[in-house]
Amino acid sequence: MRDPILLTPGPLTTSLATRTAMLHDRGSWDSDFNAMTADLCRRLEALVDGGDDIVCVPLQGSGSFAVEAAIGTLLPRDGKLLVLANGAYGQRMAQLAEVMGRAVVTLDFGETAPVDPQRLAEVLARDPSISHVGVIYCETSTGILNPLDAIADVVDRAGRRLIIDAMSALGALPLSAANLAFDAVIASGNKCLEGVPGMGFVLARRDALAAGEGNSHSLSLDLHAQWRYLQRTGQWRFTPPTHVVAALLAALDQFDAEGGRPARLARYRANCAALLDGLHALGLQSFLPADIQAPIIVTVKAPARPDWHFDTFYQRVKAHGVVLYPGKLTKIETFRIGCIGAIGRTEIDMAIDAIGRALAETGLAV
Amino acid sequence: MRDPILLTPGPLTTSLATRTAMLHDRGSWDSDFNAMTADLCRRLEALVDGGDDIVCVPLQGSGSFAVEAAIGTLLPRDGKLLVLANGAYGQRMAQLAEVMGRAVVTLDFGETAPVDPQRLAEVLARDPSISHVGVIYCETSTGILNPLDAIADVVDRAGRRLIIDAMSALGALPLSAANLAFDAVIASGNKCLEGVPGMGFVLARRDALAAGEGNSHSLSLDLHAQWRYLQRTGQWRFTPPTHVVAALLAALDQFDAEGGRPARLARYRANCAALLDGLHALGLQSFLPADIQAPIIVTVKAPARPDWHFDTFYQRVKAHGVVLYPGKLTKIETFRIGCIGAIGRTEIDMAIDAIGRALAETGLAV
Ligand SMILES: Cc1ncc(COP(=O)(O)O)c(C=O)c1O
Ligand SMILES: Cc1ncc(COP(=O)(O)O)c(C=O)c1O
Repeated sequence: MRDPILLTPGPLTTSLATRTAMLHDRGSWDSDFNAMTADLCRRLEALVDGGDDIVCVPLQGSGSFAVEAAIGTLLPRDGKLLVLANGAYGQRMAQLAEVMGRAVVTLDFGETAPVDPQRLAEVLARDPSISHVGVIYCETSTGILNPLDAIADVVDRAGRRLIIDAMSALGALPLSAANLAFDAVIASGNKCLEGVPGMGFVLARRDALAAGEGNSHSLSLDLHAQWRYLQRTGQWRFTPPTHVVAALLAALDQFDAEGGRPARLARYRANCAALLDGLHALGLQSFLPADIQAPIIVTVKAPARPDWHFDTFYQRVKAHGVVLYPGKLTKIETFRIGCIGAIGRTEIDMAIDAIGRALAETGLAV
Repeated sequence: MRDPILLTPGPLTTSLATRTAMLHDRGSWDSDFNAMTADLCRRLEALVDGGDDIVCVPLQGSGSFAVEAAIGTLLPRDGKLLVLANGAYGQRMAQLAEVMGRAVVTLDFGETAPVDPQRLAEVLARDPSISHVGVIYCETSTGILNPLDAIADVVDRAGRRLIIDAMSALGALPLSAANLAFDAVIASGNKCLEGVPGMGFVLARRDALAAGEGNSHSLSLDLHAQWRYLQRTGQWRFTPPTHVVAALLAALDQFDAEGGRPARLARYRANCAALLDGLHALGLQSFLPADIQAPIIVTVKAPARPDWHFDTFYQRVKAHGVVLYPGKLTKIETFRIGCIGAIGRTEIDMAIDAIGRALAETGLAV
């Protein structure tokens, strides 16, 4: 039987070309693999128009490992982080800074509003001890798009440093070092770049990274040490996920062939629009207003019915070949549908069809 | 052209069946993937005759991440770790404990001798503040086999807790909770189990793990939190490397089909013996005496010639289809050859042949 279509924000649907790149074993000390790592980093730096100022440091593990490594390395031990939170990933950034024992404050916008740059400006003016600001570009727990340009502007004018979790944005939403001041952009190969899970990376400003020596609370997550070792040897510090790296490079070839970031964004936009139309036709409501909806993941209000059970619905939709994602809102019953991955209009139409059938079968059609 | 044979201790040569298991995308929230995770953990627990006392906690990242997570979670903040070191991985264990701010002392046996249980007993008797002892079962930097049974005995009799880095041993060398007292065994899917790199795991004593709540210096590397989440939801806490997990399960199927640990050890032993014979016939000397040589990786003395260059030699051997590994000794010029991975007598013979040709081509034949 066919594998189901994953409409989830990572692991997501990848192309067969990406997965077959994993059919080779490669030595991690070998010059061929070092060349792959160098190529990967160069291409990821170019993604944000990095020039000479921005360096890519890849890291083993999931995306959260890369977030923790960036904060732990770039935030001085006596620094103070302000996290702009409007969902689970903002909360997680604050939590990981807290666990590592750094000073951290959270400016919380709830789960339904984007970050307000004006309130950010006020907080920064009031608290000069805040050295760094952390923000989630696209808050994947709802799909909210935060106003990154305006936020970066406020942070820059206040003379503070910005750390951007662009996990579910990089490769699709605009993000350029040419017009945005940041110390680090954190992302994963397994979202809009359409690789497989197993590594993240940080695109860091060279001088901020150089200044991060000795900051890290963790050997494995020390981004400065990882960078220096990479510079000196061309190799990852500890065993790299060679197959995952090969898959990401293959995925980047396809990214280029598609037409790069603008083309990818256009496809995701079209996916998102078709999804919203289809859901609407089925009588389902998306949760976010259109102006703050990133074309990455859509949060859908569950039918307001006492007999709603996400698990039952999920299994029915899966039986029709499509895997959805649970909601992450704390107060209202929702589920989520990803617009990203190696999917297009065909898969969105299949998903709408599968959802329609599942609603009918469970007596929830409206 | 054929891919080269990797005679390296991870990433190593895997079977095509293991790699083709990565051709499917899987949702990390999905019950099918949860069942895979549960199956994986159950099988890894069984590897050490875990019974009900030992639980497996898988972790994203390389093996070092799992070592750091185990130490960070199991060693109380006011605990003290004694590391038994005779090579790079012992040194690394001490270093990661130090970076996380724990009290750590090292008992160093140099690079050429196994751990001496008698000296361990003396140190433990002298310093009652040592709560935990860390040891490397097979010190991959040379291939030294440490006397695990005797070490565990001393630690147990002294009422201290043992943490075993069995990265390059588990699945081949004997290790059973039935006759060995330990708090944790740390390993990777990418050594003797012949999976691909991208995850490690810790086999921890349930009550030690339960007592580890709040110890961790790191959110991502908090083994207790990873375990509790897994227990509660059946899922990994952060995005799992789904393809790597699938590969490891496929590799475990082949492990079982081969006849489990004894059969694997027998194959590695045969690989190692054939390798040592072949090297000897070429006039090359292995570094370790036979009684402390683990059948995992062989350290070879470089020809004592001023015109020896490992890089040149390495490239010649690679041109003949075999990838070797550099030495890790600080004082003498060596290189290493792994005996592990999906390889047998054929590949060892090819390697000896390739090494012989490379020596002849570079005028280094003896
Ligand atoms: C914005 C954001 N940050 C962080 C993460 C964490 O990534 P991971 O689950 O790979 O640790 C995610 C994952 O979806 C994310 O969307
Ligand atoms: C004994 C031992 N410990 C730890 C490690 C570290 O593993 P990794 O390189 O996957 O971080 C290795 C890797 O070879 C090892 O052999």
